[in-house]
Amino acid sequence: MRVLGIDPGLTRCGLGVVDGLPGRRVQMVAVDVIRTPAGSDLGARLLGISDAVEGWMDQVRPDVVAVERVFSQNNVSTVMGTAQAAGVTALAAARRGIPVVMHTPSEVKAAVTGSGRADKAQVTAMVQRILQLAEAPRPADAADALALAICHLWRDGTAAVMPVRGPNASKGGATAAQQAWVAAIEASKKSRR
Amino acid sequence: MRVLGIDPGLTRCGLGVVDGLPGRRVQMVAVDVIRTPAGSDLGARLLGISDAVEGWMDQVRPDVVAVERVFSQNNVSTVMGTAQAAGVTALAAARRGIPVVMHTPSEVKAAVTGSGRADKAQVTAMVQRILQLAEAPRPADAADALALAICHLWRDGTAAVMPVRGPNASKGGATAAQQAWVAAIEASKKSRR
Repeated sequence: MRVLGIDPGLTRCGLGVVDGLPGRRVQMVAVDVIRTPAGSDLGARLLGISDAVEGWMDQVRPDVVAVERVFSQNNVSTVMGTAQAAGVTALAAARRGIPVVMHTPSEVKAAVTGSGRADKAQVTAMVQRILQLAEAPRPADAADALALAICHLWRDGTAAVMPVRGPNASKGGATAAQQAWVAAIEASKKSRR
Repeated sequence: MRVLGIDPGLTRCGLGVVDGLPGRRVQMVAVDVIRTPAGSDLGARLLGISDAVEGWMDQVRPDVVAVERVFSQNNVSTVMGTAQAAGVTALAAARRGIPVVMHTPSEVKAAVTGSGRADKAQVTAMVQRILQLAEAPRPADAADALALAICHLWRDGTAAVMPVRGPNASKGGATAAQQAWVAAIEASKKSRR
């Protein structure tokens, strides 16, 4: 099962894709953060997020999209934009017939760290460990998107609960087009550094 | 100038179109309320709203879309869905290059009634008077959408501030396709009653 995790936001929208199969370790397929300029109008920002999310959905072909459930009790100055970004994401998934599941931040933290009140550093560290990544995913929105996807796999019972040691598995069922897409994302991230 | 006013919401989303030209009275082109079932999942509901709003945009060809600005201080149980509905609306407009303007509820109330704290009955009564409608627009979401559109025209300075007496003007610059669309909306509303 392939899960696209989305940590919605207008300024930074984290996208992370992981694959999981029963008895196999969870594998990262792709991760990135979409940014839209704070000075642009709302429609243009939502269009930028929607286009990026649709591109990911069409290329990585997730079986399910896991989105962070936003609460209006959160930071008031950003919560409306976050809800709107989550909305265009759910819309893009619905257009493709991809189910959308919501997980609360505390569910996600509990899934990857064992505590619903873990801080961002703990979540990032556990995401790196679970996915056996050479580097910690940065910024926090990228790690949060991966954590959301892992959370969904584990709650769904599709993936082994903790990674098993061993040589890196193959890319699994990714098509050539999907692998090219992932490589393109990686290349664009390197050129941005 | 043709304005599409949108009172966003998942359960009821009000849509109202008015035409305004300097020195001419404001005219209603179309009004309706889109409903999505509370039991459906978020993506399906947003898709229903998006499809309806896109249909309106393509048929009535508004010059500008006026959306109610949602505040997170509002009713906590509905505010997230309202923000998401507003988001897919702004996205649909951005895809078509149609500018989106936001007006607060108090701006809208002040524009049509003179008081930012007017109640729904006052807003509905003034919308009926300004647009010289035979019946009051129902439900309140329909009246609110029309009020939003009127508010934008008046703040923009495009329309005369109050209606002038006289025979009903023509349909203005509406094309045959647009008039057919409006007739279709009217027919569907009658059949639903």
